[in-house]
Amino acid sequence: MSKKGRVFSGARPTGRQHLGNYLGAMKNYVALQKDYDCIYCIVDLHALTTLETTRDLKQNTFEMALDWLAAGIDPRESIVFIQSHVPQVTELSLILSMVSPLGKLTDLPTFKEKVRMQPNNVNLGLVSYPVLMTADIVLYETDIVPVGIDQASHIEFARETVRSFHYRYNTTVLKEPEIKLTEVPKVLGTDGQQKMSKSLNNHIELALTPEETTKVVMTMVTDPQRQRRTDPGNPDVCNVFSMHKVFSSPEEVEMINTECRRAGIGCVDCKKRFAANLNASLAPFREKRAALAQNPDEIWDILHDGANRARVIAEQTMVKVREAVGLP
Amino acid sequence: MSKKGRVFSGARPTGRQHLGNYLGAMKNYVALQKDYDCIYCIVDLHALTTLETTRDLKQNTFEMALDWLAAGIDPRESIVFIQSHVPQVTELSLILSMVSPLGKLTDLPTFKEKVRMQPNNVNLGLVSYPVLMTADIVLYETDIVPVGIDQASHIEFARETVRSFHYRYNTTVLKEPEIKLTEVPKVLGTDGQQKMSKSLNNHIELALTPEETTKVVMTMVTDPQRQRRTDPGNPDVCNVFSMHKVFSSPEEVEMINTECRRAGIGCVDCKKRFAANLNASLAPFREKRAALAQNPDEIWDILHDGANRARVIAEQTMVKVREAVGLP
Repeated sequence: MSKKGRVFSGARPTGRQHLGNYLGAMKNYVALQKDYDCIYCIVDLHALTTLETTRDLKQNTFEMALDWLAAGIDPRESIVFIQSHVPQVTELSLILSMVSPLGKLTDLPTFKEKVRMQPNNVNLGLVSYPVLMTADIVLYETDIVPVGIDQASHIEFARETVRSFHYRYNTTVLKEPEIKLTEVPKVLGTDGQQKMSKSLNNHIELALTPEETTKVVMTMVTDPQRQRRTDPGNPDVCNVFSMHKVFSSPEEVEMINTECRRAGIGCVDCKKRFAANLNASLAPFREKRAALAQNPDEIWDILHDGANRARVIAEQTMVKVREAVGLP
Repeated sequence: MSKKGRVFSGARPTGRQHLGNYLGAMKNYVALQKDYDCIYCIVDLHALTTLETTRDLKQNTFEMALDWLAAGIDPRESIVFIQSHVPQVTELSLILSMVSPLGKLTDLPTFKEKVRMQPNNVNLGLVSYPVLMTADIVLYETDIVPVGIDQASHIEFARETVRSFHYRYNTTVLKEPEIKLTEVPKVLGTDGQQKMSKSLNNHIELALTPEETTKVVMTMVTDPQRQRRTDPGNPDVCNVFSMHKVFSSPEEVEMINTECRRAGIGCVDCKKRFAANLNASLAPFREKRAALAQNPDEIWDILHDGANRARVIAEQTMVKVREAVGLP
């Protein structure tokens, strides 16, 4: 049976994925395959806008691909590839830059945020980022881009860019992507305060061993008001409890919700339960990851095969684009 | 015998070339072939930064190529091609954008001038123009770029970008181009006031017939102080006299210089002499152009062959660049 359309999503090669990546993106990537033709792209060129060093770029790409595949992204169903392996994206980005107002780009909140974060490296790549992202999306004739609300302005920019291109060159060759607003759960790190992130080192890697996982989980910050075992706790402000809601059975969640409030269960016990449930939940993933990791060449083959398939679609689009622009 | 190095130069596809193009660039292009490996590029992508319509882009590219070849650019000696036919340039441009400070680009006098000229179309392509130009140059391992003083800042930018790239990625794979400052004669238009330019319609197309040429030459503005035939003229302020210095014999130039000052020769006669000498000078060009124009396919074949040869060099550079950047 035919699917509902084409989904495109890209993610920077950040290496081994963590729980935040899984709950925020990967889980959804896997689920979308049922109803859509999916293209998942490891955007290594985007990574260059902010990376100080690219020493680990290749390894990080490999590790991320491994995690994606182990989590259930199926390379027979979906296209998984590395952005720079389809250089047509740079050609389209350059062409779209001609209809992208500089002022609009420098006004985007995401650009301003990046300038704040790296004031000494405000490079051209940083400002042209949304144009390259537009090229990523429209190159593959994408119908739908699943994004969280914080990325919605970029997709709106992509839609406007498509319309500007159509207007300037009096054509309709590009597909205007639809935003599929996706509820991206805010996954807090082990500190219980900030978003889980590798750079903050408050993350729980999916590929840890069960023992390592338990060790990290035991460091998680719980309700800070609960000082002693005998103090009652408040699950509503406890990050471990949030995780239970995802990885534990409804009965166990209900039990903890009740017992924590009356000091019937301690944080150590609560965390051990979470660690056990998390490990159980990740067991199939880890098994598959270990099997895949046995054969690195196969991962690269999958990525190259994905690029080959992506390139066919990309070149079809570019033939139309070059013709519409009137390039000789 | 081996040549002294590789020269690269690009020009926008402005269609049929005029005397200003010939004296300002084409003549030099032809001469450089003797001592250098030359790559001459019709930069259609650059044209997109300012073009309101691309309706004539293909035809203008063809006409310019025809003029170049008729003027003596030898496609067996040199590589003549169209920029967009070697898309590696967009890939390199994007990669170089990561080491190109936005502030430096917006500070360039040429950017400010373009903003002044098209305030309602300050697109990203306009600001990234020097980065694409850098990519043009370094993609082909260029040793030398012949430019007039007004373009020197762009080559300086290219040199700095190469050094930034080398520093960021701890590499030396790119070649830092040398500037070859070329005296670009300021060729005035038929109005005798402004630089000869198609957009000002004060130009003398090389491909006109002798009769058309004479007709245009007769409209040229001479010394505005010389109102009557009997008034003495001042060749030092006369654009027709400047042209005589290029196209007439030293004896004739000397004669005009003397006779004009004592009203011994009138402007009509003087222009007729210039037209005759210009037509004589352009006769071989026109003959060759007419012959080439008989077979448009051959022109396109030359351009495609040039692109094929350029692509080989480009891909060699990109293999090294991708490796140096550490792309997966």
